[in-house]
Amino acid sequence: MRTLNVALGDRAYPIHIGRGLLARPELLLPALRTPRAIIVTNDRVGPLYLATLRATLEGAGVRVSAVELPDGEAHKDWMTLNRIFDALLEGRCERSTTLIALGGGVVGDMGGFAAATYQRGMPFIQVPTTLLAQVDSSVGGKTAINHPLGKNMIGAFYQPRLVLADTATLDTLPARELAAGMAEVIKYGLIRDPGFFTWLEANLERLVARDAEALAHAIERSCRNKAEVVAADETEQGERALLNLGHTFGHAIETGMGYGTWLHGEAIAAGTMMAAELSRRLGWLSDADVGRIAALFERAGLPVWGPELGTGPYLELMSHDKKVEAGRLRLVLPKSIGQAVIHADASREDIAAAIAARCR
Amino acid sequence: MRTLNVALGDRAYPIHIGRGLLARPELLLPALRTPRAIIVTNDRVGPLYLATLRATLEGAGVRVSAVELPDGEAHKDWMTLNRIFDALLEGRCERSTTLIALGGGVVGDMGGFAAATYQRGMPFIQVPTTLLAQVDSSVGGKTAINHPLGKNMIGAFYQPRLVLADTATLDTLPARELAAGMAEVIKYGLIRDPGFFTWLEANLERLVARDAEALAHAIERSCRNKAEVVAADETEQGERALLNLGHTFGHAIETGMGYGTWLHGEAIAAGTMMAAELSRRLGWLSDADVGRIAALFERAGLPVWGPELGTGPYLELMSHDKKVEAGRLRLVLPKSIGQAVIHADASREDIAAAIAARCR
Repeated sequence: MRTLNVALGDRAYPIHIGRGLLARPELLLPALRTPRAIIVTNDRVGPLYLATLRATLEGAGVRVSAVELPDGEAHKDWMTLNRIFDALLEGRCERSTTLIALGGGVVGDMGGFAAATYQRGMPFIQVPTTLLAQVDSSVGGKTAINHPLGKNMIGAFYQPRLVLADTATLDTLPARELAAGMAEVIKYGLIRDPGFFTWLEANLERLVARDAEALAHAIERSCRNKAEVVAADETEQGERALLNLGHTFGHAIETGMGYGTWLHGEAIAAGTMMAAELSRRLGWLSDADVGRIAALFERAGLPVWGPELGTGPYLELMSHDKKVEAGRLRLVLPKSIGQAVIHADASREDIAAAIAARCR
Repeated sequence: MRTLNVALGDRAYPIHIGRGLLARPELLLPALRTPRAIIVTNDRVGPLYLATLRATLEGAGVRVSAVELPDGEAHKDWMTLNRIFDALLEGRCERSTTLIALGGGVVGDMGGFAAATYQRGMPFIQVPTTLLAQVDSSVGGKTAINHPLGKNMIGAFYQPRLVLADTATLDTLPARELAAGMAEVIKYGLIRDPGFFTWLEANLERLVARDAEALAHAIERSCRNKAEVVAADETEQGERALLNLGHTFGHAIETGMGYGTWLHGEAIAAGTMMAAELSRRLGWLSDADVGRIAALFERAGLPVWGPELGTGPYLELMSHDKKVEAGRLRLVLPKSIGQAVIHADASREDIAAAIAARCR
């Protein structure tokens, strides 16, 4: 087992990474305030891992209830969130009860938002079961639901008390979702860890083949990068925004295609290529750099072209981005492989040209 | 103008109290991050004060949009909250835009919750226009909406950057609502300020007659008590719970009668009498003490008897209270006039008897 720490003062918390952690009560118990928990999961992950997690907790004397949500980004809405509130109230959960999110990014984001807002805040544990959630969404306290006009528009910063990443749960992850998680792994190399990017170029096929050692290394290195950024800038006043490389473009793809048509990681891969193309036009990346990035995404099985929504709709959808300030789009762009910057000066024409060049 | 400070470190904020403050841009501008604001109000307060506040801001170069909600506690729900999110997104509000809640407790609680969660948090200003909001709900950062199974069950702790209490807005407040606000004013005397309780006994008719000087004093003294408690215990781990005197009983009345049938302050008055009756049974208050409390509420025009819901339904509704811990009701009870305590050891029978004794 590997353990990292997210250094947030009196809200610091550990991330445990390893195989078989769902069965280890001694890792879970220190994060519970009282011996009472509610597990939030979905109808795909629940049948696979709920019984194990429940048995681990009950074996240690914890009273456990559970709520299963419908699976998928399309359900990351108020109506589904309200099912969690209903379960919390009908189950008479107290504000000292611990909410445990068992699943991917959608379950973690919704479970986290429910925990942040039920009775103004209850203890929260993340048990991510997808690569995307293990390397990105479970760490750092961003929680949210979608609004018809924009992704993650309603949410809160709310830190978990523990992240438990059981890599054995990746055994059952569909290949398409493993690939989607890889988009965020590659992102860390691109924005702040050139050595990791090189490691990924040398080891990507081991990850695709689910080599346990390679996966554990990639998850740890990703979480370490994320934890450092979050500790330095919890509420995204500055550096944390760099984690959104490809996300402004990617959210436009997700929203434009209808939530759930493209997986988040797929949209991020295509969106990152648009950002890279814009960087090339600004003279920051060479053709060869753009080629290296595209090659890595392609080896991971990810799209490197966006859907043809038209540049007008792209720009319109992007204008709802949370990073918009005084009406200006603030884009995260790679300055080189291993370094990203926030750029607020790109012209509408350049952005449109970069989008057009990366759609097909 | 009187100014208090809520001492919360880097989130400290001022409370300004006085007549005509809505027209003073120099008080509002320091709390705005950018010259862009959205005013959330309701269809009763909006027609009276929205134009003034808007003119003050626009005259200072602030771009202002507004959203009017239906008035009343019955609308403190997700559907109405979502109208704020729709307005924020349709108006392309950014996370640096400031949300200003202009109205009573419901507008403040909902506006605050929208500000806490829109794009994970935007700047927030409280402009309370009812006595209840000026002395209680606008100060301290509690925001929430109701759930069919319980009041204020979904919310967040989110501090405003400014509270602007224009006492001139009380001129148009219906007498029944002025009385409802008085319940919280009396509460401060009862839980921690015996000198203020005595002052109220000497001056209550001046308050009912809306004597400007008396009102300003009562608001300032109430806010000072609240600010001290909040600064010491922002997220209600301890002392802050004392502010909920009468609220566990009162919430049962509000929920049991249907939101909006009883005003919050009315339910708190009747609920406080149940708490006082329980204290009497515990030997903490004398018959005379209970009589003094009831007399003060009655002089304010408040009910001192709860509705006959039956003790079973009362206890059932109270069991959803946020202060329940390990299944035990933790009640706030007056130990004497001017001092309250948290009491978790009252028997179900004693609580039921106190309720029954104060219903008619």
